[in-house]
Amino acid sequence: MNYSFSDRIGGVKPSAIREILKLSSDPSVIAFSAGNPSADSFPKEEIEQFASEILGTTPVLALQYGLTEGYAPLREALKARCRQVYHSFDDGIDELIVTTGAQQVIDLLTKVICNEGDTVIAEGPSFVAALSSFKSYGAEVRQVAIDEDGMDLDELETAVKTARNPRFIYCIPNFQNPTGFTMPLEKRVGVLNIARKYNLLVLEDNAYGDIRFKGEHLPTIKSMDDEGRVVYAGSMSKLLAPGLRVGFVSAAPDLISKMVVAKQVGDVHTPVLNQMLCHSFLTRSDVPEHIKRINALCLRKSDLMLSELDAKVDGLFKYTRPQGGLFIWCTLPDGVDMMEFSGRAVRQRVAVVPGNAFYADDVARRQSFRLNFSSPSDENIIEGVGILAEVARGMC
Amino acid sequence: MNYSFSDRIGGVKPSAIREILKLSSDPSVIAFSAGNPSADSFPKEEIEQFASEILGTTPVLALQYGLTEGYAPLREALKARCRQVYHSFDDGIDELIVTTGAQQVIDLLTKVICNEGDTVIAEGPSFVAALSSFKSYGAEVRQVAIDEDGMDLDELETAVKTARNPRFIYCIPNFQNPTGFTMPLEKRVGVLNIARKYNLLVLEDNAYGDIRFKGEHLPTIKSMDDEGRVVYAGSMSKLLAPGLRVGFVSAAPDLISKMVVAKQVGDVHTPVLNQMLCHSFLTRSDVPEHIKRINALCLRKSDLMLSELDAKVDGLFKYTRPQGGLFIWCTLPDGVDMMEFSGRAVRQRVAVVPGNAFYADDVARRQSFRLNFSSPSDENIIEGVGILAEVARGMC
Repeated sequence: MNYSFSDRIGGVKPSAIREILKLSSDPSVIAFSAGNPSADSFPKEEIEQFASEILGTTPVLALQYGLTEGYAPLREALKARCRQVYHSFDDGIDELIVTTGAQQVIDLLTKVICNEGDTVIAEGPSFVAALSSFKSYGAEVRQVAIDEDGMDLDELETAVKTARNPRFIYCIPNFQNPTGFTMPLEKRVGVLNIARKYNLLVLEDNAYGDIRFKGEHLPTIKSMDDEGRVVYAGSMSKLLAPGLRVGFVSAAPDLISKMVVAKQVGDVHTPVLNQMLCHSFLTRSDVPEHIKRINALCLRKSDLMLSELDAKVDGLFKYTRPQGGLFIWCTLPDGVDMMEFSGRAVRQRVAVVPGNAFYADDVARRQSFRLNFSSPSDENIIEGVGILAEVARGMC
Repeated sequence: MNYSFSDRIGGVKPSAIREILKLSSDPSVIAFSAGNPSADSFPKEEIEQFASEILGTTPVLALQYGLTEGYAPLREALKARCRQVYHSFDDGIDELIVTTGAQQVIDLLTKVICNEGDTVIAEGPSFVAALSSFKSYGAEVRQVAIDEDGMDLDELETAVKTARNPRFIYCIPNFQNPTGFTMPLEKRVGVLNIARKYNLLVLEDNAYGDIRFKGEHLPTIKSMDDEGRVVYAGSMSKLLAPGLRVGFVSAAPDLISKMVVAKQVGDVHTPVLNQMLCHSFLTRSDVPEHIKRINALCLRKSDLMLSELDAKVDGLFKYTRPQGGLFIWCTLPDGVDMMEFSGRAVRQRVAVVPGNAFYADDVARRQSFRLNFSSPSDENIIEGVGILAEVARGMC
């Protein structure tokens, strides 16, 4: 039979990232295209031990249905961490629930806030699966340019004033995906002030916040919020392991209760065993020491990729020097066709993510591409950067 | 600040079941209100052993990001099972992906198929979280009465003809939730024929199909589908353990590819460890023997509850005698206020689910309520049925 689909899903194309992820699962391809944390950072033995204890002592709790809001001891551990580390939970104004990854926070908030035709304001470029999630509920996406200094606040205000029913501002203040940029403090204040002025919510996605390997932590936008305007999305994916699919959201109780309704009809609850593993990790492991290990690993990988870029690229294209996260953002000179560059690179068996993928309008010409340094091996970083430099030499 | 929510989520109220589940987590309440399989049926030692092996030998695979479609070996194991046991997978016309519980199948299909204002046809009564999921995308719900003989086909055809943009028929042919009814073969054929005649999809939810403890298995509707019209939702929740949140959908590739897009922006993928546990169970455990054990347990519990009802209720209300599943459906005489009955029961510390919960229009007067026999202890079944009979005696 022939199928007809909803208008909302017609607006979402399978993401370039997903297609490239598939390609990069070919083991002969050097995958600078991934968004994966380094597998070396997973505390494998601890997780194995926790799983054994949980399934040995409280199997029924781990295997039976749970509450939609999440496993209560994990919720408390996350609240405590949000209070103490990120200042992103205020007992007076916030509630917190567990989600199936931070992606689900984006999905649930859009579902409960946006009517079809409403607008979400995002950074440009931004995390592709967030943009697709907004579009999958029929929301329009307006992107505001960012650079090393964060969002352009004038452009942000203009976007808010001219957009149809703007509902929230989506941003990734720390080690942004895909650029690796960190939003300076004054821009965090500025974004919140614009949200206040125009009565918008802010969705602060802090998936990468723990992975700071240079410089000092900056306050979260949530920490400056005294009226329940900021929805804070957190994740265990980079802190512990992404395959477990455990994230969380801290926000005002009225927002949380609607998101619970949406989650209940979406997947009932996040798997309990996975929540218990995260709870064991947060309460029994040396989390600060673990973060130190991850960051030392990421710093070493980032330094290696940067020193290879410094040695080989020879000014053919520009690239960022991130203070954290997983990504370096590269920009080709204006005359060079970035899609052609990315195509040549993958035919030479090096996969990068073309910058177009990070815009709702993915056909406009873009000059940038994203590199991941956390998951490739050292050898692959050295070889792959060499190949990229060669491809650039042939085109620039 | 004050929040305004999307129209779609405004139509969904927190389900009565969820509220009652919370209440029934009070250990002093006898929870006939649950939808839980018996925890005695979980193969706890096997799951512990599988987890230990998976995390001991292939931890990175279990903990790193996976593909949205699911863990490939599990997909193959599920396809094989669907082919051999349920005849619900046809290599020529179907594809299969893993979902975060069967609930996510309902959610994804509605998202990719229904525009706001389209109609989903469902059984009346039906699974409350499915009805809420339909409404959460702005779909209208039309319910068609069912009894022991299944859906009323004349009423179904009238509903299809008079509904606004009907898109699919949702049904639970085996041991329906909440009634426990099983749709006879001729009704299965009839539902599919009406779907063909009016070019609708059928969403066949077979969450309970394995738990047949009396009578013979009937063919799935999917097994009669030769044109990709039936979307088959399956679950590991009753077969293995619901807390793992692993389900799957088998359907035509065009439908599956849109559902993959929606899943990618919803939760990226179902947790890999959980999928690997299900794969180990399906390929290494004696699944037919495990099903025999579950069914012997459910039969014993069902027989106990029925014998207590037979001994104590004394014709004060009617109840069904299911051939499988988890539920008995009780109906009070017309003059008795069912909500008042349910309220008195819970004040006597026996929780049942009022029938209203299973209708999109949950304020209309209903006479029925649902009992779960799989999860309460024998003592609680005996005591709880006695209390229900006492409450009925005071009202009928």
